[in-house]
Amino acid sequence: MTGSDPAARRPLGDLCVVEFASFVAGPSAGMGLAQLGAEVVRIDPLGGGNDHLRWPVAANGASLYWASLNKGKRSVTVDVRSAAGRELVTALATAGSGIFLDNAVGQRWLSYEVLSARRPDLVHVRVQGHRDGRPAVDYTVNAEVGVPQLTGPESMEAPVNHVLPAWDLLTGATAAVGLLSAVHERSVTGRGAHLEIALADVALAGVANLGWLADAELTGRDRPRLGNHVYGSFGTDFATADGQRLMVVALTEKQWRALCRVTATEEVFRALEVALDADLDSESERYRLRETIVAVLRPWFAARTLDELADQLDVARVLWSPYRTMRQAAARFASDEDEVVRHVDQPGIGRMLAAGSPLRWSGGGLPPQAAPRLGADTAEVLSSLLGLTDADLGRLHDEGVIRLENRMTA
Amino acid sequence: MTGSDPAARRPLGDLCVVEFASFVAGPSAGMGLAQLGAEVVRIDPLGGGNDHLRWPVAANGASLYWASLNKGKRSVTVDVRSAAGRELVTALATAGSGIFLDNAVGQRWLSYEVLSARRPDLVHVRVQGHRDGRPAVDYTVNAEVGVPQLTGPESMEAPVNHVLPAWDLLTGATAAVGLLSAVHERSVTGRGAHLEIALADVALAGVANLGWLADAELTGRDRPRLGNHVYGSFGTDFATADGQRLMVVALTEKQWRALCRVTATEEVFRALEVALDADLDSESERYRLRETIVAVLRPWFAARTLDELADQLDVARVLWSPYRTMRQAAARFASDEDEVVRHVDQPGIGRMLAAGSPLRWSGGGLPPQAAPRLGADTAEVLSSLLGLTDADLGRLHDEGVIRLENRMTA
Repeated sequence: MTGSDPAARRPLGDLCVVEFASFVAGPSAGMGLAQLGAEVVRIDPLGGGNDHLRWPVAANGASLYWASLNKGKRSVTVDVRSAAGRELVTALATAGSGIFLDNAVGQRWLSYEVLSARRPDLVHVRVQGHRDGRPAVDYTVNAEVGVPQLTGPESMEAPVNHVLPAWDLLTGATAAVGLLSAVHERSVTGRGAHLEIALADVALAGVANLGWLADAELTGRDRPRLGNHVYGSFGTDFATADGQRLMVVALTEKQWRALCRVTATEEVFRALEVALDADLDSESERYRLRETIVAVLRPWFAARTLDELADQLDVARVLWSPYRTMRQAAARFASDEDEVVRHVDQPGIGRMLAAGSPLRWSGGGLPPQAAPRLGADTAEVLSSLLGLTDADLGRLHDEGVIRLENRMTA
Repeated sequence: MTGSDPAARRPLGDLCVVEFASFVAGPSAGMGLAQLGAEVVRIDPLGGGNDHLRWPVAANGASLYWASLNKGKRSVTVDVRSAAGRELVTALATAGSGIFLDNAVGQRWLSYEVLSARRPDLVHVRVQGHRDGRPAVDYTVNAEVGVPQLTGPESMEAPVNHVLPAWDLLTGATAAVGLLSAVHERSVTGRGAHLEIALADVALAGVANLGWLADAELTGRDRPRLGNHVYGSFGTDFATADGQRLMVVALTEKQWRALCRVTATEEVFRALEVALDADLDSESERYRLRETIVAVLRPWFAARTLDELADQLDVARVLWSPYRTMRQAAARFASDEDEVVRHVDQPGIGRMLAAGSPLRWSGGGLPPQAAPRLGADTAEVLSSLLGLTDADLGRLHDEGVIRLENRMTA
């Protein structure tokens, strides 16, 4: 629309971020920055970190997870147990733009004190499990903040974990917000920053920011488990005549009226409002009477196929979606015409679906890039960022500190 | 540790962000920036937006949700249906730092074209449902990307929604990443930006970035529903002797060995490895044999109370957490000694739990602030950002465009 080429947009094109992290949070932060044009160098131990073979994996065992979380980065591997390897990591962490992202909790040699002594204006962002350094993962912090007790069918007693590592992804994006804020501050004041972000704190802040912690404290009770109902509003799933399911939501008065109109239940609900002394234009009242509303609407949905429903609901501007399986979701992108999700040619795996940034610039997407092969950029990065010569690289290879392809150990 | 006062850190202290958004995504983006020191002005219609009374609510009907998502902002209300009101919104959107965040899909008068004509270096970030402008909410996009089919007990047929609006929160944080990236680019090039981010794209990118879309396409099948098991690794919940539950995870070999050691099952699993030709030091193998592992471990957990287990598991450095209810989670913060979650004195509500930023600067937290009362800052913001005089404000009040407290309509 505006005439500029979105693919040319690299808003962070002048930044270099060095990442020494694994699993979801840190790597997803780095990937988000790489998608916006930053040069992101991921450092791993020789042979890969703990996340290098994580599921899901391709038929040959290569990790789709790792490839998906490290797209558009450069990969350096180093023997991080050797003194020479640690010197390389330290040098990289403080090189380039002086921006270092890690999850190296408890590693004194990578502490802010050590690194900032070498580069005073360093921006160092550390991702942690708990604030005090104890480990945590999405599945444990989620249990701690009470979400699994709210998830799943009303009839269940046991907690139901969410499968999406939501706190991991949110920690990654929030770490990137912190990193960019610190870079902004540095550009104004010249001062570096020492940031820490704990997965457990992101989860706590997450439930607090929705008012859920305050609700539990002020009411003195836990809100009920609601199945697929939306808390405090009207939204739930319905079965269709052809065995499909869809989610229907009416948060606003407009959405509610659209739902009544298309299902021809306006008179029914008007009469119910009188009979039950209720005002269904109010979101709270729709929540209170959700079971009654569902009972009235269910037969209408059950009498129609998903295709029939899709047409009618779209025309009526009802807020709804079909439930898709992951395979159905993936099938939408077979043609590679989508701007966000398309196939990349992934070294070590082949053609695979990947997502670009969900941020669209000037009306256009930033399509995905492949992830590097583990260690593929070691020589190039050490030479460009640290100025190492071929002779230096050869020596480090011979000492086992790095591993260069196409080179025999002496 | 480093001697600087973290409470004094306001890395975005020189930025002013004008927000015209509602519900979770946009407002949480603005709040995150306010927590890092930006002046964030939220604009609402007179009487509040669609989210102003959303659940959870306090006993007096005031929204804990709204208060929690708008902490540290300033609040301006305007009659956005009047020409004069729209002129005020447009003027605010292009005032100050020229950073505008909205979710005003379909509102031509707030399009990038209109706004950038007035301020060419504007950074405009728009949060949407779908990329094409169709509405969507967390519960509908989640259904579309297949997550509810993976969530919940193995025995279930129907989809299970996650209750956490994970995509909303992630969209908010990612919008903030985009906004700060655009501000960074502008500081280098002088050029503004037109960004859009759709909830549906964030959800698609989210499942793609975990390798889940590629997995479904490459295997040609949907992965199974796994209850509380962690996909591709070992992690699940156990019941205790006193009727509690806890989540135990062994992603790494070290975590797995700690779990075997504390449960004294090392010999059992060694023998099972021989009998079943398996290598339980491999994460994939632990996943494959998860039911067998659970069957071996379950009686050990069932024979101990949660307190007993907590001591033993912590000493052994097992990765675990108790399942808490939201009320139990809230109870931890009664004393107001925590750096991230504590009580604020919230106008219109009173003492309530709230979270500061999970980003810790120089070892210290940024504690929460209260949210404004709706419209409380209208006069002050219109005067400071737009230079309106008392006479201007009085006239706008008399015309019904704004509503000033302590003032009678003429």
